[in-house]
Order: sequence, then C-alpha cells, then structure tokens
Amino acid sequence: MTTPSWQDVANQKREAILAAIPSEWRIEALPSVEEQADVTEYVRQYLNEREVQITESSADVIAKTVAQGKWTAEEVTRAFCHRAALAHQLLHCLHEVFFDAAIRDAKALDKYMSQYHKTVGPLHGVPVSLKDQFHVEGVETSMGYVGWIGTFEGKKGTGKEKVVESEMVKVLRDAGAVLYCKTSVPHTLMSGETVNNIIGYTLNPKNRQLTAGGSSGGEGALIGIRGSPLGFGTDIGGSIRIPAGFNGLYGLRPSTGRLPYEGMANSMDGQNSILSVVGPLATNVASLRLATRTILASHPWLSDPLVHEIPWRPDHEAEVKRTKKLCFGILSHDSVVSPNPPIRRAIGIVVNALCEAGHDVISWAPPSHHKVTETGGKTWVYDGGADVRSAFELSGEPMSPQVAFYQSLDKQFTGSEIAATNVEIRRLRKEYLDYWNSTADETGTGRPVDALISPLAPWPAARREKYTYYGYTTWVNALDYTSVVVPVTNVDKRVDVRDVGYQALNELDKRIQDDYDPDMYDGAHVSLQIVGRRLQEEKMLTIAEYVSGLIGK
Amino acid sequence: MTTPSWQDVANQKREAILAAIPSEWRIEALPSVEEQADVTEYVRQYLNEREVQITESSADVIAKTVAQGKWTAEEVTRAFCHRAALAHQLLHCLHEVFFDAAIRDAKALDKYMSQYHKTVGPLHGVPVSLKDQFHVEGVETSMGYVGWIGTFEGKKGTGKEKVVESEMVKVLRDAGAVLYCKTSVPHTLMSGETVNNIIGYTLNPKNRQLTAGGSSGGEGALIGIRGSPLGFGTDIGGSIRIPAGFNGLYGLRPSTGRLPYEGMANSMDGQNSILSVVGPLATNVASLRLATRTILASHPWLSDPLVHEIPWRPDHEAEVKRTKKLCFGILSHDSVVSPNPPIRRAIGIVVNALCEAGHDVISWAPPSHHKVTETGGKTWVYDGGADVRSAFELSGEPMSPQVAFYQSLDKQFTGSEIAATNVEIRRLRKEYLDYWNSTADETGTGRPVDALISPLAPWPAARREKYTYYGYTTWVNALDYTSVVVPVTNVDKRVDVRDVGYQALNELDKRIQDDYDPDMYDGAHVSLQIVGRRLQEEKMLTIAEYVSGLIGK
Repeated sequence: MTTPSWQDVANQKREAILAAIPSEWRIEALPSVEEQADVTEYVRQYLNEREVQITESSADVIAKTVAQGKWTAEEVTRAFCHRAALAHQLLHCLHEVFFDAAIRDAKALDKYMSQYHKTVGPLHGVPVSLKDQFHVEGVETSMGYVGWIGTFEGKKGTGKEKVVESEMVKVLRDAGAVLYCKTSVPHTLMSGETVNNIIGYTLNPKNRQLTAGGSSGGEGALIGIRGSPLGFGTDIGGSIRIPAGFNGLYGLRPSTGRLPYEGMANSMDGQNSILSVVGPLATNVASLRLATRTILASHPWLSDPLVHEIPWRPDHEAEVKRTKKLCFGILSHDSVVSPNPPIRRAIGIVVNALCEAGHDVISWAPPSHHKVTETGGKTWVYDGGADVRSAFELSGEPMSPQVAFYQSLDKQFTGSEIAATNVEIRRLRKEYLDYWNSTADETGTGRPVDALISPLAPWPAARREKYTYYGYTTWVNALDYTSVVVPVTNVDKRVDVRDVGYQALNELDKRIQDDYDPDMYDGAHVSLQIVGRRLQEEKMLTIAEYVSGLIGK
Repeated sequence: MTTPSWQDVANQKREAILAAIPSEWRIEALPSVEEQADVTEYVRQYLNEREVQITESSADVIAKTVAQGKWTAEEVTRAFCHRAALAHQLLHCLHEVFFDAAIRDAKALDKYMSQYHKTVGPLHGVPVSLKDQFHVEGVETSMGYVGWIGTFEGKKGTGKEKVVESEMVKVLRDAGAVLYCKTSVPHTLMSGETVNNIIGYTLNPKNRQLTAGGSSGGEGALIGIRGSPLGFGTDIGGSIRIPAGFNGLYGLRPSTGRLPYEGMANSMDGQNSILSVVGPLATNVASLRLATRTILASHPWLSDPLVHEIPWRPDHEAEVKRTKKLCFGILSHDSVVSPNPPIRRAIGIVVNALCEAGHDVISWAPPSHHKVTETGGKTWVYDGGADVRSAFELSGEPMSPQVAFYQSLDKQFTGSEIAATNVEIRRLRKEYLDYWNSTADETGTGRPVDALISPLAPWPAARREKYTYYGYTTWVNALDYTSVVVPVTNVDKRVDVRDVGYQALNELDKRIQDDYDPDMYDGAHVSLQIVGRRLQEEKMLTIAEYVSGLIGK
C-alpha cells in the first residue's frame, strides 16, 4: 500500500467539500476575479426573493421571526445552506459542509415548536457557522492541515474522530442553533490571511482581489456575503477582529475566561501566557449580544474549567445607557505604523459623531504599544515552532509564505525564559491599567476613559502576502482587553487619496504606506475597534451598538 | 572592604528583629521547649487582663468594638504588638517588626474617628499581620533569603527598597487596618515547615516540638498564639491551609484571580500554570469574610490586572442559608497516603454532625488525585530550580534540608514540555469538573455535591523534617478550587491510638504511619478543609461557618 501524496489527500478533500454541495446549487460558469471583484450583490442572482430576504436578515431578527412562526427553521436553514454553497464557490471559505445534518436538525426544531408551541432556546432555528477549530459530530476538523485529515488533531485511531464535540457546540445545539458548515482558516491559525493547501486562498467578497482576513477568514468571507448570519471565530492576535473588520461585520473579542474554549482544536495548545479566545461575528451588535448572552446563560463555567463564573450583567449595559456623557480615548496612531488614509478618515467620522452627540474624546497616550506587542509576540514562539512544524511534517505539505517564519525558528524557550516573559506581560498589563485609571484626571467625567477607539489594522483589508503588521490587534490580546469591531465606512478612492510627501517612521511603515492603493481598495470596508478593559463585554457591546447608531450603521 | 559572610548578615538581621522589640517586652528567662511545649496559655502571664481580652478577640469583634468607640485603635495595636513580641521570642515567627509605625498609624485612626465620628473603613483599628512576601513601606522583604537583605527582591540599588507597597497593602491601609509586623516563611516558600537561615525554625505554639506549618508558618504561629487577629498568607501548594490547620485557625485559599497578588514578592515568579494565591487566616470565619469582603469592595480588578471583576456575592451566601439539605462529598483517603488516626476521627465528627443536622454525605470517588498532584508538581520545577538557586547564590547560604531537592535539579522544561503540562492540567481539571457534575445523580438534592470534606495533610501537624507528602493540599491548587480550613478537634492520645496491624499502601505511606506518635501529638490541633469548585469563596465561607457551628467551634 503506497501512502498517498499530500497533494492527493488535499485534492480529495477539496473535491469532497465541493461534492457535498447539491448539484443544483453549483455555479456553472464562475466569474473570474477580474470579471467580478465584488460578489456581495452578484450572488443574489442565484437566489430567490425569499432566500435573499432570509439570508440578508440578522441573527437576532431570524431568531425572532422563527420564534413567531413566520419562518420555519428548515426554510431558513435551506436558504443559508444555499447561499453558503454559492459563497464557497466564489470565495473558498468552507472546510466542512454538512447541509443534510443541518436540515435534519432544522426539521426536528420545527417539529418541536409545532408540538410544544415554544422554542428550544434563544437561537432556535438560527444557522450558525463555525471556524474549523470546533469539533462537530460527523465531520472532520482539519484546521487547514492536510496531515490532520482522517485524524483527531493529527492523531490516528483515537476513537474521537468525528465523535466528540466542543463544549460550545453543545451549548449552541442546546440553544437551538443549526450547525451546517465549518469555515476556512490559514494553516497554523497564525495569519491575517486565510490560506492552506486544501481550499487555497479565501477571498474577500467585497473585493476578491483582497484577503478576507484571518485567521477566522472563512467566517469573515461567509458572513460578509451573508452565507451565515452568525458565526464563531477565535482570536489570539486579531483573528476575530481582522476578518470582521475586513468584511464590514461586527465581531467580539471577549477577554480570556468569558466564553468556553474547552474541547476545541488549536495550534500550540498549552501556551498559556496569552490565550486564544472564542467569540462571535455577525452583521449587527444585537446578534453578538444574543450569542454572548445565550452562551453565558448556559453556565459555561460548569463545563469549562477555565471560564470564570461571570453571568451576563444587565446592570453594566444599563449603566452605559444612563450615562449622558461618555469619554473616549482616541488611539489614532501606535507610533510604529501609520494607518492608511481611509482608516484615519474613519476615526474622524467616529470622533465627530461622538462630539456632536455631546461626548468627550481625549487623545490616548498610553505606555509603549511597541513594547506590549513585542513582548506578547514572544508567546507565539515559545516552542520554537515545534508544534506547527510537526503538523506540516505529518503530510509533508509546504508552509504558505504567510506563515513560513515558523520554518526558520529553532530555539525553544526555557522555563526561566517563559517565566520572565510572563512577569514582563504582567508588568505591562499593570502599567497600562494604571495609565487607563490615570485618565480620570483628564476626562472631565470623573471616570477614566470609558472605551478606546482604535484601528484594527493599518489598511482597510490587506493584499495577498502583504499582511506584515499585527500591532493594531495584538496589543489587545497581550493586555487581555475586550474589543468590539464596528464597520464605519467604505474606501472612496476620490477622498482617500495617497498621502503626498509622507515621511515614513521606519522601513515597515514606508512599505505599508507605499502599498496603499486607492484604486485597489475602492469600496472596501473600513472598520475600527472599540476597546474596553478586561472582561467588559456587556459595556463594550452596548457602546459599540450606540456608536454604530450614531454613525448611521 | 570585605563582604560580610552570610552568617554575619543573617545574625545581624536576627538581632535587628529582636532589637525592634521594646526591652520591657523581652522575656528574660525563656522556657525551653521541653519545659513548656504548649505556650498558648503560658504567654498570658506577660500580659495584663485588658491585653488578654483584646488579643483573644477575633478580628470582626475588634473591628466592631473599635467602631463603637469602646477600644481605641492604639490600645488594640499596643496589645497585639506586645503579644506578637512575646510570640516571636517563643516561636521565631517574625521577619519584620514595625511597632512604632503601627502605633503612629493607630493614633491617626483614633484621631480621625474622634474628628469625624466614623471609621475610615471596615478594618478600622484592626491589626493585620502579613507574610513576608508583602512589600510594606519602611521595612524590608527578605522572604527568608539572606541574599535579599538590603535589596529589592535580590536586586540592589533599584530605588524600590522599602518604598513600594504591594496593592493589597494599600487596600488594607485604606480599609483602616494597622500593619505592624511581617511573618516568617521558609526560604523558597516551598515547604510545609517554616525554616530559614535568619530566624531559624518557626515553632507551633500549641506544641513547640511540632512545626507551625508553612509556608505561611509565621502567620500560623502568630495568629495561633493570638499575636495577631487576622493575617494574610499565600498558597501555591497548601501554604495558607497547612499553617491554618496546624494552629487551629480558619484559613481561606481562594481561587486564582479573586484577591490581588499584584506587587508581591514571590519565588519562581512568572510560572503561570498554577498560580500562588493570597488569602486570609484568622480565628473565625467571620473575620475571613470581613477581610475578603473588604478587599473585594476596593475593586481590586482596577489595580491588579489578574483579578477578575467578581464582587462579593451576597446571593451566594443567601442561597446556602436557605438550602435545607446540603450534600457533602467525603474524601477520607486519597489512595496514596492514609490520614493518621486523629484526622480520620475528625472526619467522623464532621460527618456525624452533618448527618444529625439532616444533610447528606456521599463517598467521594474522584479521578486519580495522584495524577492531579503529580502533574501539578511539575510546575514547581519548570525552571529546574534556577530561580531558587540564584537566590541562595546571592549570599552563599545553604538550603535547609526541607527544600534541598532544588539543589539536585538541573533540567529546565522547554516551551513544548510546559505546553504539554498545561494541556494535561486543563484535561485533569475538566475531568474532575465532569466528575463533580456527575454527582448530581447521587446526592438526592438534585444538585451536584455542594462541598467536599477533605484532610489537608495526613497528620495533625508535621514533625521537624518530616513534611514528606503534600498530596492533600496540592490537588486543590492544581484544580484551582476554593478551600476553607476549619479546626475540628485536638489529638487525644488515649483515643487516637496507633493503628494495629496497618497494611501500608506503599513505602511513603508506611513511613508516615510509622511516624505517627500519639504522645508527641497529644493536644495538637486537628483540622480539615472544606473544598468547593473554582471561585466559590462566598459559598465555602458560609458552609465553613455553618459546619463550624455544628461541631461546636
């Protein structure tokens, strides 16, 4: 028996994903990227009116409409399966397609409702897409590694393959969510672009010349094209926020220990200085809130030993709502890389809206972000790339250029070096917290700044193989802060022109400014993040919804 | 200039501690251990009636009495300074003595109250002792290392020496606590006995042939002899619970992230797989509650980035109080080492009291404790002893036999090995949590077990150089559970006789049973711990107080 080549295995898997799409949903003549860069509206031609109406509704509206009996779970599920199938053909955003199981589950939900005249839970009939780190019964978790195909997290014959489910999956099922697909990730999960040797490169539906972001890039692309109303990604360096931002979506990066990660596949599992967190992406804040509240209502601290017992806190929401004057810190530049012109314009839009509504803003002058991100970055290479390399060695497949730096690493950190890094991270967190507290003297509200407005990347959406700077997301992970991504505007090439005579701060900054191309980015989503202290999910969601309303989103 | 020998530096420090005790408080003719093993009542002869009354009051009563104006902060402080001075001479339990600063602070508190007719906070006028890991302005932190004397955590000329204060110290001062001494620890902090080359060996006031426990042994001895009504220790493997248990005290080991550790000295700082936690020791549960509530009321999450925003939860207390039937898991044996006869008798006392009061007990049959403690133990040697050895090398002092295993280590863990350990710890936590949840089928209350009753050591109090097994405390740290120590009884040599014909489970078990000596232990405190899931401080304190009442403590 000869071992199949990694190419054979990858091809077979790629074909299997396509084969799971019903033939009537195949696009016969796929438009090239050049022919059709923006496919967000283009995709509608393959759908009927009802399907368009359903799939262009937000998760909270879907939940309500199904609960009212106006839509069945089955028709909602079929509509999203259809649009997801189209999405994958146009964008390469799915790793696993299990529409049959979804329709079976949806039918059961409809039956339950007709029998008991109530929903099974707050997500009754809402299709939910999952990043390919969640284990779901009946389907594989490859995480983009060819060597993981046919295994459980790279190990063969464990008996867990296609059987065990992540805790979050159980919570979602119990709440009535319909699971129907798992979405693409970059192999290693450590990239702001989504690429692997199975599905190739995940494209941005708003402009297929651009990346959908990463590492929850499949989520970003799928929800961006409305092939899903609500999905879950993970974020250790920006992996929820980048795809949310690049696809005009809302995304929550909660703090560590708020939502259950138990039983999910991961890269470099066991690195516990800066933990990856799981969080929702959706088309409005109401859906993020619905998802977060629903998960917390399941008491996840009873099934995940790392979740803190902090139920959803309505008083935190109420406090924001009754506060007449909020104060925002504006982080317009991190002193390392300048945000591109449309990002700067987006900050101006938000600042103006806040000031017009009677709120205050102050310039944010925190301790060095460079130091924070540099120290945080060490945690990604504690094992000298051993875990990542071993995953590639399983099949012999090559690393994509986006993550090839793992090839060149060789030194493991020692216990002493890891301890020293942890001490430094704690010191930086304390320093930043003290700075945040100190703003009470400046805000005029008597309180420290309520939230920060910050870029999430220097660009509206990165270009292929050009995701070279993560500093605007990774500081949030290093500090374990709460962040909600809010779409603000779209690039307008007539307004967002290149800076003339820009003096670059450094080589990286020069390259990033040089790469800015108004023509290429025209129409792309421009988003910002609203950042709060640790474990401020309720407050940040409330503020994000409010800000979003102010800017007319 | 010749560098002084470590002996000279240690002697000088030892003399300086004694010299800080006013001459009128010196004991001229110290009784030998043989002459006077139990000094808990013996010490009263040096105190006047008022001093005895004050010092034998619990912290909650002191707070109330001072708040009522019946005692002044100054007289309370003077009484405890006096008794602490006697304690140190009899037990070697202090590293730092700053009575003058304490009396100055107490006078200021009295002045405040006479001026404003209110207290500055809930601990107004309550003397609080601190383990020598807290940094307090004006005094040193040696942590028992000769090489740390005259430095800040081993570093010279940092400008922080005797200047910075730990966050907890600020919280305590703001609440009106009077700080007056810092208590002894074993060098490295990693022992159930308290010994170092500065103060020697900290003795158990109930029986000076026995250890006061460790690593918060100075706290245990000092509060045990009523030289302090309330103190704070730390616990990474039992270091609050062991001295609390051996000295007939109540002690709280909270879960990680509940109380602020920020700004404290530590051993192996930065090892973050199993964190050391800070917690109170006192003479009743009411004082533990007062301390914990007071600290949480200061919003410690705003000054310590590792504290979770979980305020004191009165509803958790109320829920226990209105529950008619509780169910307890009884861990009478961990399958590695048998508890000595008096410990087994103590379990029987508690079980009988619970059953008589109408509660249920079930036998606790959890996943392997051996595996839990073995895996948790790896975290203590991640750096191959490098941090500990470097602290000894500063002065050239020798390690005490109790911690000499750090001498023989040489291998650092790699990043991959640490990650694998973290994954295993998480897996064990999940497995234990699932087991705990599964007991809902057995309890008859519809809920899983409310709390566990467990030994905290195989013996009532260890004998010198015989603290050879930590399994009854370390499992709680590895799982990050909440534990409250409750004194149950005292050894009675007529009742707690040696087992006849005991079949040892293994070599260690044999040695520990052989060492049991009813004559030596006669009268020693026998305590147990009441263990709850993670972050269950309110519930466990409420249950501990209730159980304590049931057994007539």
